[in-house]
Formats: sequence, structure tokens, C-alpha cells
Amino acid sequence: MNQKIERLIKQFAKLPRVGNRAAVRIVLSLLQTRDGRAENLAAAILDATENVVPCAICGTLTDKNAGVCEFCRDNSRKNGMLCIVRDMGDVWTLEKSSVFHGRYHIIGNLISGASGVMPEDLNIANLAARIKDENITEVIFALPNTVEGKTTQHYIMSVIGNDGVRFSELASGVPLGGDLDYIDDGTLSLAFGGRREL
Amino acid sequence: MNQKIERLIKQFAKLPRVGNRAAVRIVLSLLQTRDGRAENLAAAILDATENVVPCAICGTLTDKNAGVCEFCRDNSRKNGMLCIVRDMGDVWTLEKSSVFHGRYHIIGNLISGASGVMPEDLNIANLAARIKDENITEVIFALPNTVEGKTTQHYIMSVIGNDGVRFSELASGVPLGGDLDYIDDGTLSLAFGGRREL
Repeated sequence: MNQKIERLIKQFAKLPRVGNRAAVRIVLSLLQTRDGRAENLAAAILDATENVVPCAICGTLTDKNAGVCEFCRDNSRKNGMLCIVRDMGDVWTLEKSSVFHGRYHIIGNLISGASGVMPEDLNIANLAARIKDENITEVIFALPNTVEGKTTQHYIMSVIGNDGVRFSELASGVPLGGDLDYIDDGTLSLAFGGRREL
Repeated sequence: MNQKIERLIKQFAKLPRVGNRAAVRIVLSLLQTRDGRAENLAAAILDATENVVPCAICGTLTDKNAGVCEFCRDNSRKNGMLCIVRDMGDVWTLEKSSVFHGRYHIIGNLISGASGVMPEDLNIANLAARIKDENITEVIFALPNTVEGKTTQHYIMSVIGNDGVRFSELASGVPLGGDLDYIDDGTLSLAFGGRREL
């Protein structure tokens, strides 16, 4: 196979959710149909890579020229609530559901012995200062419901300390529409422990 | 959502086998992990788009500077057999299986009323000349076993005419390891009609 094609397939295959077979199909479609799509894709990648950076305050992805992101600029979001999430995808998920209208803080990583992620790899250096400066009264942890997520959450709580700030986390339980047949034992146990009186 | 990010997600979502959710994950991974992967991908796309072109003789993708592709250059492949396929992916599939050692001809499209693909959209202008110049004695159709594939095959046969050249097509039947339970009626009917005496 042609080297340039092979190189391109390898690059695509490295992307998440794209396997080798999908990469082959993608490259074939880009090279066999010359409609400018390939050039547009390359231009969009370079444009976003150059001009989108993490917000210096909260870590959400934002325009380089904007300085501070839309969430940190928006004063109507200054409602004393700060939601701690792992990455930008979680911010988009929460924004789509419109359940939260406060500010975000992206920590970027979860502490994990297995993956070698240490507390110093978390983006939390300015977290205590934010809580003070922005008069945060409630910190909501919306981290993955896993050992790594919980470890990270406890670490952050210990770093912040709790003078005047409340901590909360998302409820655990059976998802909406969830059939008990398909729920794992851990979730079932949490759902029982947290049962609501009617 | 940031415009540049949105534009990039849309570009990725247009690729085959990449849905909107996968596109979001891909863009997140490119923008959150700054390891040069995004820039390398963009460079590889531009490099391949600029420097890989269809071979003027057979239509397989090849280096622009090479002029004629590896298959057409290779004299050991001049064995009188010409395999007609739809696209480059089919060439790669056949090459991987090592079942064919002759030359290829990529027609690029299949005649289809539904998709509006007409006979003039097929890359077959030089096909008759190739058969004469390269002393082809057998033309093998390796087109999809569909109505469009068969229609296209019959059209090409009628265009070439059969003075001195044999035509063949891949056998139809039950795939290796195929369980009769999972074979459709059409395939089963073809497999019965083409049964081999033992």
C-alpha cells in the first residue's frame, strides 16, 4: 500500500472510537471523493488546535482571543455553585441537560494508581482561590461514579477543607428507564441504601 | 459551544462510520491532549490529498510522482487477467487475500437508478483499449453481488463485446463457516443452483 495512504490510515486509527477498518473506510472516502472535504477537515483541525485553549480560570475549552470563557464571563452564572467535572465532554453533557446553571471547574484527570495519575496532575491549583473569590457556597462533584472518581473527590475535599462551603455529589441509583435485570449489583446496593421514603 | 469546535465536530461527523457522538469524543481527545497528534493528522490529510491520485490506467490510488501505479508497472502481473472492482478498498481486500495476481481496473461506481449513477459515471473509457493493449484473455468481475453490481457487470460486458476475451464472475454461495440458519433465501437459492457434484 502507498506510504502516504498507510500513514494517514494509522493517524485516523489512533483516534478514539475509530478502529483500523473504519480508518481505511474514512481514508478511502476522503481520497476517492475529491469534493474538498479532506482539505476542509485539515483546515478545521489546524484552526481549532491553534485557536482553542483551556480557560485559565475553569479549564473549559474556549477561544484563545476571548481570554476568559463564556461560563466565567457570564455573571448570571455567579450563583455560588461550582460543579467539578473531569473534562469538557462532561460540561457539554451537563449543558445539554440544562440541570446546572453555575460555574464549572475541569480537573482534567482522575487520580489513578493503575494509570499513574497523581494528585499533582489535577487542575486544582486555583480551586481554593476560586471558591473564595467567587463566593462559592456549594461545590458539586459530578465525577464518574468509579473508584478513581471517588478517590479524586475525597482528595479534593481534603485539599479545599470545609470552612463555609458545602460539598455534594450526584445521586447514585437506578437510571431512568433502567430495568433491574440489567443493573449491576453495586448500583443496586447503592440504590437500596439510598432508597426514598414515599 | 465554541464555533471552531462545533465546525470541527461537524467535519468529523461527515466521515463514514463516525457518528456525532464519536465525532465529539474525537475532537475532545484532539483538543484536550496536546501531543501533536492533531497537527500530524492534518498534515497527513493534506499530504495524501495532494500527492495521491488515481492511476491513469487502472484507477488505483497511487503516488502522483510515480505516474503509473505499482500494479500497472509490475510486469509479473501481466498474466492476461484483469479484475474489475468497484473501488480501492476492494483492491486492498483482494491483495490481502493473495487470490489474484493479475491487473485491476477500478470502475469507481455502480450503475444505480436510485442513486442516479449512469453508465457514463463508470471509469471504463479506456477498458476496451486496455484489453487489447495488455493482451487480456480473461476479465473477472469482482463487483458486489447486488442488483447494481450485476447491472453494471452486464453493461460493461455489452460494451466490451466478447471477441477473444472470456468473462467470469466470483462464485455465489454459502460463505465459509456460514451457518444455513443465517443465510438469506437468495443466497441459498444461488448455492443450490450452483451445487457441486462430489
